[in-house]
Amino acid sequence: MRSPQSLVQRYRQIRKTSELICAPLMIEDYQTQAIADTSPPKWHLAHVTWFFETFLLKPHHEGYRPFHPQYEVLFNSYYETVGKFHPRAKRGVLSRPSVEEIYAYRRVVDEAMCEFFECSETDDAVLFFIELGLNHEQQHHELLYMDIKYNFSVNPLKPAYRLDLTRNDGKMTPVMGWHEQAAGLYEIGHGGDSFAYDNESPRHPHYLPDFRLANRLVTNGEYLAFMEDAGYQRPELWLSDGWRHINQQGWKQPLYWEPVGRDWLQMTLGGPAPLNPHEPVCHLSYYEADAYARWAEKRLPTEAEIEVVLAAKPIVGNFMEQDCLHPAPAGVEEQWYGDLWTWTSTAYHPYPGFRPLSGAAGEYNGKFMCNQMVLRGGSCITPEDHLRASYRNFFYPHDRWQFSGIRLADAE
Amino acid sequence: MRSPQSLVQRYRQIRKTSELICAPLMIEDYQTQAIADTSPPKWHLAHVTWFFETFLLKPHHEGYRPFHPQYEVLFNSYYETVGKFHPRAKRGVLSRPSVEEIYAYRRVVDEAMCEFFECSETDDAVLFFIELGLNHEQQHHELLYMDIKYNFSVNPLKPAYRLDLTRNDGKMTPVMGWHEQAAGLYEIGHGGDSFAYDNESPRHPHYLPDFRLANRLVTNGEYLAFMEDAGYQRPELWLSDGWRHINQQGWKQPLYWEPVGRDWLQMTLGGPAPLNPHEPVCHLSYYEADAYARWAEKRLPTEAEIEVVLAAKPIVGNFMEQDCLHPAPAGVEEQWYGDLWTWTSTAYHPYPGFRPLSGAAGEYNGKFMCNQMVLRGGSCITPEDHLRASYRNFFYPHDRWQFSGIRLADAE
Amino acid sequence: MRSPQSLVQRYRQIRKTSELICAPLMIEDYQTQAIADTSPPKWHLAHVTWFFETFLLKPHHEGYRPFHPQYEVLFNSYYETVGKFHPRAKRGVLSRPSVEEIYAYRRVVDEAMCEFFECSETDDAVLFFIELGLNHEQQHHELLYMDIKYNFSVNPLKPAYRLDLTRNDGKMTPVMGWHEQAAGLYEIGHGGDSFAYDNESPRHPHYLPDFRLANRLVTNGEYLAFMEDAGYQRPELWLSDGWRHINQQGWKQPLYWEPVGRDWLQMTLGGPAPLNPHEPVCHLSYYEADAYARWAEKRLPTEAEIEVVLAAKPIVGNFMEQDCLHPAPAGVEEQWYGDLWTWTSTAYHPYPGFRPLSGAAGEYNGKFMCNQMVLRGGSCITPEDHLRASYRNFFYPHDRWQFSGIRLADAE
Amino acid sequence: MRSPQSLVQRYRQIRKTSELICAPLMIEDYQTQAIADTSPPKWHLAHVTWFFETFLLKPHHEGYRPFHPQYEVLFNSYYETVGKFHPRAKRGVLSRPSVEEIYAYRRVVDEAMCEFFECSETDDAVLFFIELGLNHEQQHHELLYMDIKYNFSVNPLKPAYRLDLTRNDGKMTPVMGWHEQAAGLYEIGHGGDSFAYDNESPRHPHYLPDFRLANRLVTNGEYLAFMEDAGYQRPELWLSDGWRHINQQGWKQPLYWEPVGRDWLQMTLGGPAPLNPHEPVCHLSYYEADAYARWAEKRLPTEAEIEVVLAAKPIVGNFMEQDCLHPAPAGVEEQWYGDLWTWTSTAYHPYPGFRPLSGAAGEYNGKFMCNQMVLRGGSCITPEDHLRASYRNFFYPHDRWQFSGIRLADAE
Repeated sequence: MRSPQSLVQRYRQIRKTSELICAPLMIEDYQTQAIADTSPPKWHLAHVTWFFETFLLKPHHEGYRPFHPQYEVLFNSYYETVGKFHPRAKRGVLSRPSVEEIYAYRRVVDEAMCEFFECSETDDAVLFFIELGLNHEQQHHELLYMDIKYNFSVNPLKPAYRLDLTRNDGKMTPVMGWHEQAAGLYEIGHGGDSFAYDNESPRHPHYLPDFRLANRLVTNGEYLAFMEDAGYQRPELWLSDGWRHINQQGWKQPLYWEPVGRDWLQMTLGGPAPLNPHEPVCHLSYYEADAYARWAEKRLPTEAEIEVVLAAKPIVGNFMEQDCLHPAPAGVEEQWYGDLWTWTSTAYHPYPGFRPLSGAAGEYNGKFMCNQMVLRGGSCITPEDHLRASYRNFFYPHDRWQFSGIRLADAE
Repeated sequence: MRSPQSLVQRYRQIRKTSELICAPLMIEDYQTQAIADTSPPKWHLAHVTWFFETFLLKPHHEGYRPFHPQYEVLFNSYYETVGKFHPRAKRGVLSRPSVEEIYAYRRVVDEAMCEFFECSETDDAVLFFIELGLNHEQQHHELLYMDIKYNFSVNPLKPAYRLDLTRNDGKMTPVMGWHEQAAGLYEIGHGGDSFAYDNESPRHPHYLPDFRLANRLVTNGEYLAFMEDAGYQRPELWLSDGWRHINQQGWKQPLYWEPVGRDWLQMTLGGPAPLNPHEPVCHLSYYEADAYARWAEKRLPTEAEIEVVLAAKPIVGNFMEQDCLHPAPAGVEEQWYGDLWTWTSTAYHPYPGFRPLSGAAGEYNGKFMCNQMVLRGGSCITPEDHLRASYRNFFYPHDRWQFSGIRLADAE
Repeated sequence: MRSPQSLVQRYRQIRKTSELICAPLMIEDYQTQAIADTSPPKWHLAHVTWFFETFLLKPHHEGYRPFHPQYEVLFNSYYETVGKFHPRAKRGVLSRPSVEEIYAYRRVVDEAMCEFFECSETDDAVLFFIELGLNHEQQHHELLYMDIKYNFSVNPLKPAYRLDLTRNDGKMTPVMGWHEQAAGLYEIGHGGDSFAYDNESPRHPHYLPDFRLANRLVTNGEYLAFMEDAGYQRPELWLSDGWRHINQQGWKQPLYWEPVGRDWLQMTLGGPAPLNPHEPVCHLSYYEADAYARWAEKRLPTEAEIEVVLAAKPIVGNFMEQDCLHPAPAGVEEQWYGDLWTWTSTAYHPYPGFRPLSGAAGEYNGKFMCNQMVLRGGSCITPEDHLRASYRNFFYPHDRWQFSGIRLADAE
Repeated sequence: MRSPQSLVQRYRQIRKTSELICAPLMIEDYQTQAIADTSPPKWHLAHVTWFFETFLLKPHHEGYRPFHPQYEVLFNSYYETVGKFHPRAKRGVLSRPSVEEIYAYRRVVDEAMCEFFECSETDDAVLFFIELGLNHEQQHHELLYMDIKYNFSVNPLKPAYRLDLTRNDGKMTPVMGWHEQAAGLYEIGHGGDSFAYDNESPRHPHYLPDFRLANRLVTNGEYLAFMEDAGYQRPELWLSDGWRHINQQGWKQPLYWEPVGRDWLQMTLGGPAPLNPHEPVCHLSYYEADAYARWAEKRLPTEAEIEVVLAAKPIVGNFMEQDCLHPAPAGVEEQWYGDLWTWTSTAYHPYPGFRPLSGAAGEYNGKFMCNQMVLRGGSCITPEDHLRASYRNFFYPHDRWQFSGIRLADAE
């Protein structure tokens, strides 16, 4: 656990980052919810604030008066034990509170939190909740980028979120190399005292046979070869649910790709850009990742395989702090962390002996452990200090708006 | 037809009114689309502008350069012969163009229109299109009020659109009186040179038997008696489609009513207000109006019946200009125009000999002549000079967000 | 009203006809419900029996014991005042009662009815209900044919219902002739003592301008010209709701047409047959009929126009008794009754002064007077003695499985 | 692999069993498909026959002429590589081929198969396909019972499938005992030469911590305690997707339970019966099983845990052959195999090193390895010789019509 002092600093920095992410937005952009999966940016700003208010200020900061009696309902995401919540798909219909009121809400909560840091004797439980709130807000950094990108992409005007992003696309990516790992009984999951989500615990033995992992992500060029080989037209390459889904949805390429004559444009946070064949292919569903792997006569890795390999690598890569906000070509280097979350073939389920946190915090992770697949490794919009080898991200197999990619695996 | 001069003045006034209606809104309010039926206020402001640009400036004003190449698609409502259009239900996802950009669009088009008024030799066709554009924008005055009310109503904060509206609710409404009309072959539809929509033509004979019409609208108090007599629970009072619809939707009262203990609150453009039993009942579907009439052992009037009676009355009443924006108790007076559009039992179909306008303007009315019911008489949000005895409004039987009410009819 | 004696005979004949219609079916065919609109043939056989049991035997035939306590629910179609009913779309899941049990039910009710005819002093109300029950069963003769045809059509094996149907397709149909009718105040609706449904009353004056009606139905050949002129691709020909509907459904031709190379096959009750260009085009929605009329620069007739013309013609034509069960080419003759119900441009609404029957019989017609369009003139599956000039049939604008066709109208 | 001779015998017996299962049905019962998940019994009879025709007779039995050219499409369930198939949800609309024709189809294929057994030099691949076809038909024995039960249950007449079933409900079930298992690296999956599905391979090491398993299934009485403790009303007990699902569906009890006053009736294959608190609770979704386990402060077992324990137990229990077709109280005995498939907390995914069969047989299992959960142990409608300790059954978490139950697990 961190010291209270460093926590204040960290609190300020993380809270600030949320607002910096929104700085390029117009008021109208804060208000939009293009689909039920995304939330209006202003809702994110309020919800992460609600988290600190609800789990720290209300129960632990004596004398704190809630900013507004209805925010408890409006900005609760899904915590049933806290009370009612506004329906997710209807967040975009709330023109009020205004963006300005939400920034005022943030200021009031931030001031109270700083008082709270100073005055209170913070026990471990409180420290844990502060850390959880900060990690929670970091997850919303990522969600802000994802949702802004999606919202902009459905606008025929194809606005750019920012025109000054770091360019990182100059390298050529040669053929894939492989990392080989010997069979054995490995320890998986988070160990030690540092912060981790409950879903990463307990650390436990897991047997793995010999396997190898691609040392970089699959590229746009490689994925185009799959498409040109009728990948989206051949049922034998697809899971049954995937085949039904792509046909119902009419999917014939990854999200954000648009054909322009014989070429492809790709929507990015910097606006539409020509597709670079050396960059990792991104914004794929699990179904597409799995079909590609089958076509390539490989498979997707399990989450344990990735964790074992990642645990031995330094946490470096193309993260949010690079300010590129787009996956970059691996070039001749290995590509382990960052760039894109890689789909694993592992369903998101509790580890043996998993115990969710008690109280409302127990709803943070545990209740989603069904119907979703684990992704690993972080992405170009993940805050670097938010990630760990044991970090488990999870989405439904049909979700595509997160920054997801493909890493291949194989028996040795 | 009006003189060009008076047209300019009228143009300026009507265009100004649209912006005055929006003046109390925050940017966030301009952006919201609560359901597919409503449109974001900023979309209305752009669409009515697009109408002038598309039907007057582009074809008739030499040298006019369109403001933005994609606005043709973004702000076309439904004119297939003009080209593609953005899907109606997705208007709320367009955070761009911004409100500011749309006001800039309005200014550019207004300047070009004023030039156009001065320079061009306006023939009758052009004058007609100007008049059509102005009437069109007046219809959107009404739609703006309707949509703003709906958008605000779904927000748990229940914001008031304006707090300074005219109060008009002081009168007691005594028992209903009746206007009697003798049988005969009447002329129905618009005659003469003044502007009217194509759907009001041609004027034609229509036989009516003896009938009588209530001289005021049904009140909240009267409707409560229907509800307390289990009106929403008795299938024999309902049309088959209506019974299915209210059960699927779970409707147990008019739109915007909310129970508070044993009383009712009603959402208005001035915020939530206690239900006044002397005011006309409003925001009802055709199904509810029809069920009420059956319960009252009366019926809904036909559109011809209303037109014949209205034609002999002066066009006075509670219109938009009263700035009440809510129906008012009739008191001891008759209530013929304004307050609420009254549902008729007449399906919206072409008059004998109807010919739609040629070109895209033919899509203004004709293609909607199926599955909808006619409403007559204007409402408290209708511009007074927009109305005529022959005016035909139309909505689907399940629609409730327009300012609709009930007038009873009977055989004599 | 008929004499009780002739009623018995008529009862026997109409009840017998229902069973003759089902005679060519296998048990499996009796059980099938291809879509919610259709009902399993065995359900029809039971429901018409339920009608006599519920409205005559139970209330009026002393000592009658209901055949089975649950049939009241299972075979009630939609009479809310009688009680609950099994959901329409789920009729096909009822494997029991078996076909054999339903025939037993019919025999028991028939015996009781014959007793009832003999013993009881039948007052007018009872006589009316018997007549209503017989007309009701005749409507189900038509529904049986419609539903059997639909059920067979969705089967890839394309079974023929009967191979011994009368052939009636030899004539060539020359260009359309026109019947002209002068303007005037006509009487519309049923008059006199003979049986008619409540929805045909009261007889009332209705003004009609000069008009003319095509003296035959539109043919397949004429409709093909519309299709070849891109009729299904041109939005300007379609009502707005129609355009949306055909695109959502992917309709590109009438129901039961299937392309075979450059030709068309048409499913009939005699199995698939090559499309005959001289036969009337059938199984069209109102939307398609309306679009065709617009393309032909004509319009659909109103129900009053058709009634006025039909009233002066003898009721002869291609009806059920011809045993062709398919529309026949008009050839050089006029074609007024039979062959196909013609869509009118009139919404199905009550006549001025309409009063539904009291009690459950009031649900027979009145509660459907919304969202549907009137069809007139009978078809090749209508029992000849079931029809009148004043007969009003009605379906939703998107319905196609009834035997519907197009008759054009025009101002003179 | 078995000898060809024993195969013929086994072929005859398994084929015969399918027909015996259907013997109590009326023709109408063969035809019904109550929901998309179930199939008409006659379709099952044809589909299992199609399997032998498609994978054995057509490719391997020289001179075999397919019974009907369209059966290939009509009775293909989901094999994309074989060709098109009739949509699953529309199987119930096929009144033809008739039940009689399908029995004729069975006879022709059976005769050809018997010829084939005698004449052909059956290589291993052929023998494998015969075994696969037999196991496939055994799975359809179970599906026949499941679907017949469901189809009968939706009929308000509540027909009994059979009245002569073995009664097995007399025992009292005392408190639950536990089987304890020590941690270790276990071998999981099918080994040896005997037949198993591809999804059970390869056998591989899997580490398990100490755990214990309940030695019997959860009873109706125990589940009632959960219900009485507001189990269906407390979101904290439910997975997020489960909570949404039960609320959307309005589930408040297991499938087939109906309240009668303060008691419960349960639909069985013998008709409605009073709920026996000593019998295992059945027809639950994964969501309900998981919520119950959370309420009981236990958890569901993983598939590996069950396999390890089952592998050491004899395959005895309440199977199809007992002819009870309903789960029986455990009494004082352990309850490991049969009675009910137990939900595991393991998502259905490939084992490490899994390779699907080549060709169309590869579609048998592999393409379903997403979004489903594994069930283990067989049920009272499973043929006894169809089961193994390594057998993996799988359904979606919301499925309830299979014979599923709850076995609890715990850390030691």
